[in-house]
Amino acid sequence: MNECMSLLKAFKQTEYRLGGHGPRDLQMLKRALMDLDDQLESDMYGKGQVMEDFETKMAHYLGKEAAVFFPSGTMAQQIALRIWCDQKGIKKVAYHPLCHLEIHEEDGLKELHHIHPILLAEEDRVIQLEDVMGLKEEIACLLLELPQREIGGQLQEYQTLKAISAYCREKGIKLHLDGARLFEILPYYQKSAKEIAELFDSVYVSVYKGLGGIAGAILAEDKEFTKKSKVWKRRHGGDLISLYPYILSADYYFEKRVGKMQQYFGEAKELAGFFNQCHSVYTTPLEPVSNMFHVHLDLSKEELEPILVELIQETGIGFSSYLKELNSRACYFELGIGDMFAKIPKDKLKNAFALLDKKLKEFNTKNSVE
Amino acid sequence: MNECMSLLKAFKQTEYRLGGHGPRDLQMLKRALMDLDDQLESDMYGKGQVMEDFETKMAHYLGKEAAVFFPSGTMAQQIALRIWCDQKGIKKVAYHPLCHLEIHEEDGLKELHHIHPILLAEEDRVIQLEDVMGLKEEIACLLLELPQREIGGQLQEYQTLKAISAYCREKGIKLHLDGARLFEILPYYQKSAKEIAELFDSVYVSVYKGLGGIAGAILAEDKEFTKKSKVWKRRHGGDLISLYPYILSADYYFEKRVGKMQQYFGEAKELAGFFNQCHSVYTTPLEPVSNMFHVHLDLSKEELEPILVELIQETGIGFSSYLKELNSRACYFELGIGDMFAKIPKDKLKNAFALLDKKLKEFNTKNSVE
Repeated sequence: MNECMSLLKAFKQTEYRLGGHGPRDLQMLKRALMDLDDQLESDMYGKGQVMEDFETKMAHYLGKEAAVFFPSGTMAQQIALRIWCDQKGIKKVAYHPLCHLEIHEEDGLKELHHIHPILLAEEDRVIQLEDVMGLKEEIACLLLELPQREIGGQLQEYQTLKAISAYCREKGIKLHLDGARLFEILPYYQKSAKEIAELFDSVYVSVYKGLGGIAGAILAEDKEFTKKSKVWKRRHGGDLISLYPYILSADYYFEKRVGKMQQYFGEAKELAGFFNQCHSVYTTPLEPVSNMFHVHLDLSKEELEPILVELIQETGIGFSSYLKELNSRACYFELGIGDMFAKIPKDKLKNAFALLDKKLKEFNTKNSVE
Repeated sequence: MNECMSLLKAFKQTEYRLGGHGPRDLQMLKRALMDLDDQLESDMYGKGQVMEDFETKMAHYLGKEAAVFFPSGTMAQQIALRIWCDQKGIKKVAYHPLCHLEIHEEDGLKELHHIHPILLAEEDRVIQLEDVMGLKEEIACLLLELPQREIGGQLQEYQTLKAISAYCREKGIKLHLDGARLFEILPYYQKSAKEIAELFDSVYVSVYKGLGGIAGAILAEDKEFTKKSKVWKRRHGGDLISLYPYILSADYYFEKRVGKMQQYFGEAKELAGFFNQCHSVYTTPLEPVSNMFHVHLDLSKEELEPILVELIQETGIGFSSYLKELNSRACYFELGIGDMFAKIPKDKLKNAFALLDKKLKEFNTKNSVE
């Protein structure tokens, strides 16, 4: 715990950082609002120009008839699945074992909506067509998360998505996209958001991950669906009198960053390459397919922490603010490339990785001798 | 519909307004953030100093052990009732027929939590001890809304609250306070928030009504209760990565306005007096018991609208932006006094009411003749 605190502390003192867009501080919000007219009117309980304009813009971007702004993806996705379950009269859906709804939402889907999820595929790989074809029970909806965040941001090939989509349409299974990181995967697929979204019925995207907004989510489908989703939004307590702080900042950072996803993708591949040249380190995926990946290290959390703190203090580069234990001899952390990476001088970066490699080798030598 | 649009339009062009704190525009937020340090760190999924400091402050203000910030009262209150129902193992609560949960939340309490409400008292009066004593079914929780907004903000006497509280404690019924407008009723009771809150088990207050924040709510009780409420907050999709735009503005406007409730209360009584001197007009309550009341007019919505538009345009004072139909011969609107009322020059105000009275008399004369 003590070491963990000092890793976070060391990280916070760095000038440079491998991942992210920078600190999540008040300046993020102020910057987004700065140039906007003070007299701009608040949205009011889901209505008003500030909300409707952004919803229309996102619907158009995603190639869907309509879109609704939600305070969170947790709310948007539970509601999407509920609508599809109600429509089909079956309270069953299928998703990956490491789906956000399964591991990060305190079982909201089960506790509030009484929807039973069927877990598809093993934890360490993405869902394939065969998994869907092998379903023994009838389901209302299949959720695919692109990229699969908890395993480093892995992706199905585009042809697989097409085949799953075609199969689901044939079988009357609704296909929902957990596109929390949809913007971030477009460069890999070389497709527009619209081209990915058209394989799915309902689509959720987050405005605070790759885009780096304050909070919020978009849920898109046809008008009948989004109308229902607004009723559920009110039921969940998400139809706030004012959501404009999130909407305005989402729009600001969308404009600022949606065109930079190719850059982040390229940088993620470059950075993963650096890690994979180091002793006792590998990334998942080995070659990133988005702006994100996981860095695995064959050292325990306790062994790695002091090494990483030293490295951060000596180089001024924030590698990570935390480590997650995988088992007693391995740990990992996640990186998502944003605006921060490009700010690091290249020589500084190369020296830092040379130093990391050296420290890990030294640790290994010392450990083998003992 | 056309008339209604022009009433709103006329209202928006006014310099002076009877109710509220002014337009809900972006300036409200900018003003609250302006003097705060840019490097102030965001809360992160319910944690972080910005959130914990405000929660502690509100817990102390309400005299409760702990408090949790929620994005909305809808979410906070459903969750409060759910916790009490789970604890008692009875999915029944009681509240007023015009309770927010019954008429404004798309039946979230029933649809998400499967809690059955028993409606106590007639619509046009507040719940009395006899109503509670007359309950035929066992309930987990009784919700009292102070003041009862939909009937003009009426209140029980303090002795009644004490008696209901004592009865509920004796019978093992949890008492929940819908204190959306708790700050606003303290001058009438001549009590502190703590003294009112101690009659209740769980307490909800809104930060955007009398205080005039952007959005958000506080739910307070002991630590065991608030811990459970955070789990449900996540399930509802209300545990956002960042709630600081709401928290910081809530804190700002709390400091600015919590001491002004006595002033608003006095002004509400003064203003209601002006209305009650006009022909065909009366307020509910006749003498306000908080900063709010309803203005009833013995004219149909269609008859009143052009008169009100004229009045607004001739005086520059925004009486109301809307009218609600009561029946074919009567309508009403709500007023909640905030910072705007004190800005109206007194002579301007008196002239405006003289003009309103004149117009209503003329209408009446014309109508009787026809």
